[in-house]
Amino acid sequence: MPSTLELLEEHRMFGGWQQRYRHPSTSLNCAMTFSIFLPGPKRESPPPVLFFLAGLTCTDENFSTKSGAQRLAAELGIVLVMPDTSPRGESVANDEGYDLGQGAGFYLNATQAPWSDHFRMYDYLNEELPALIAGNFNVSDRQAIMGHSMGGHGAIMLALRNPGRFTSASAFAPIVNPAEVPWGQKAFSAYLGEDRQTWCQYDSCWLMRNSTAKLPMLIDQGDSDQFLADQLHPERLTEIASEKGYPLTVRIQPGYDHSYFFIASFVEDHLRFHAQHLLA
Amino acid sequence: MPSTLELLEEHRMFGGWQQRYRHPSTSLNCAMTFSIFLPGPKRESPPPVLFFLAGLTCTDENFSTKSGAQRLAAELGIVLVMPDTSPRGESVANDEGYDLGQGAGFYLNATQAPWSDHFRMYDYLNEELPALIAGNFNVSDRQAIMGHSMGGHGAIMLALRNPGRFTSASAFAPIVNPAEVPWGQKAFSAYLGEDRQTWCQYDSCWLMRNSTAKLPMLIDQGDSDQFLADQLHPERLTEIASEKGYPLTVRIQPGYDHSYFFIASFVEDHLRFHAQHLLA
Repeated sequence: MPSTLELLEEHRMFGGWQQRYRHPSTSLNCAMTFSIFLPGPKRESPPPVLFFLAGLTCTDENFSTKSGAQRLAAELGIVLVMPDTSPRGESVANDEGYDLGQGAGFYLNATQAPWSDHFRMYDYLNEELPALIAGNFNVSDRQAIMGHSMGGHGAIMLALRNPGRFTSASAFAPIVNPAEVPWGQKAFSAYLGEDRQTWCQYDSCWLMRNSTAKLPMLIDQGDSDQFLADQLHPERLTEIASEKGYPLTVRIQPGYDHSYFFIASFVEDHLRFHAQHLLA
Repeated sequence: MPSTLELLEEHRMFGGWQQRYRHPSTSLNCAMTFSIFLPGPKRESPPPVLFFLAGLTCTDENFSTKSGAQRLAAELGIVLVMPDTSPRGESVANDEGYDLGQGAGFYLNATQAPWSDHFRMYDYLNEELPALIAGNFNVSDRQAIMGHSMGGHGAIMLALRNPGRFTSASAFAPIVNPAEVPWGQKAFSAYLGEDRQTWCQYDSCWLMRNSTAKLPMLIDQGDSDQFLADQLHPERLTEIASEKGYPLTVRIQPGYDHSYFFIASFVEDHLRFHAQHLLA
């Protein structure tokens, strides 16, 4: 089939290539942009893929420009895929708040008007984008996933809902219990409606409590994060993991905040963690 | 004396601190902003300082957020200082072009109206900012300097004009011969006037040809840099260095462009190069 990918940018980086593509998305019913880092040839076998899901207000570019992850991806021989955080465009519904609408897709399939026409990030990330990557790049079928804040929610939630799909999951400052915190409650009410039963399928605490499969999981959380007390609550997931014997490591990093300076400081540990499982 | 520094931002990073300050500048006659990375304690002696001068359109934030240099600065025990690229503000002269006025100070002292009221980046970097750093932070008196594009010009030019001041200088894709390329000719005409004799003091090729002292110098240049043929001409400096026996290393990096993706790919080499001399 002819590729639907349009190359927007390409930069040599750490002996590999940092690229940015646009493509028409059938799940989201609009044009979407993603970034990808392709390491230089390391081995004979195709490299595995590590997805990074970004947080509120972000695009595919924040992690691409600020994390420094490509250095490790080049060294380890891993493809990084950085999707956008929501559908975009003039015909796509939006909201004045930074935490709803464009830039705030919460990685779910919306069922409520006006959002349900486009906001199907769950399907986009679970089916469409992986198929697009597999069909257009030389990659293995091994995949892992990571994210930050709203994207940490997305990474853990997608991993918990799809046992066997990812070798490992990790997050920086994730929203682990969106059904019970202000950011999640605002978004889930708008996208999914007021029937809270429908929220559970996107709540990592509920999903882990009801999980049977297990995959290795790493979370880093700064204790000077301005959103820690109201929005994040990693201790709720730690408690469930402990009860269930789930292989989750949560590290509290003293003095660190919610920024990409925090992500950059610990991204090496996350890449090496995923490499252990992706390349095993 | 009471500090004139106002702390604007502070983030824990790689075990140290990434900070941003505003202060009134007497050289530039306006408020200025700079960023600084302070590594965590590594040794008993105060750490040396490495200045990074940014390119056209940039501020103190580009290198701070995109280079990944703090990882090495933390490991090696070096303070990074990232100044802005020009005076700023409503009362400061400007131009519609991206290559003149605010964001394009060219690290010189302007002598022509309307620029001479504020555009004195040479004095700011040569005297005021180093004194401010020495007076407010626990640093040694050892200093090195690096930069990108217009900031590469600034770094090499400042080092060549002040023998003994820096232990080493380096640059990514520097403008080494501004008096003979379009960017430099436009800026020097506006800031310094049409008497080309006054331009020499800011032209690294002229300065190196007339230098007596020598300091170690490293340049990285991508061969897919969109500005290479018209604006950069590193071969002109290489030729002079060769004639004079000047300790300059120029590395041509195949496929790399002018972006921060290029800088991030080689910043480790630059930090280790400066560490050899700063920490000797």
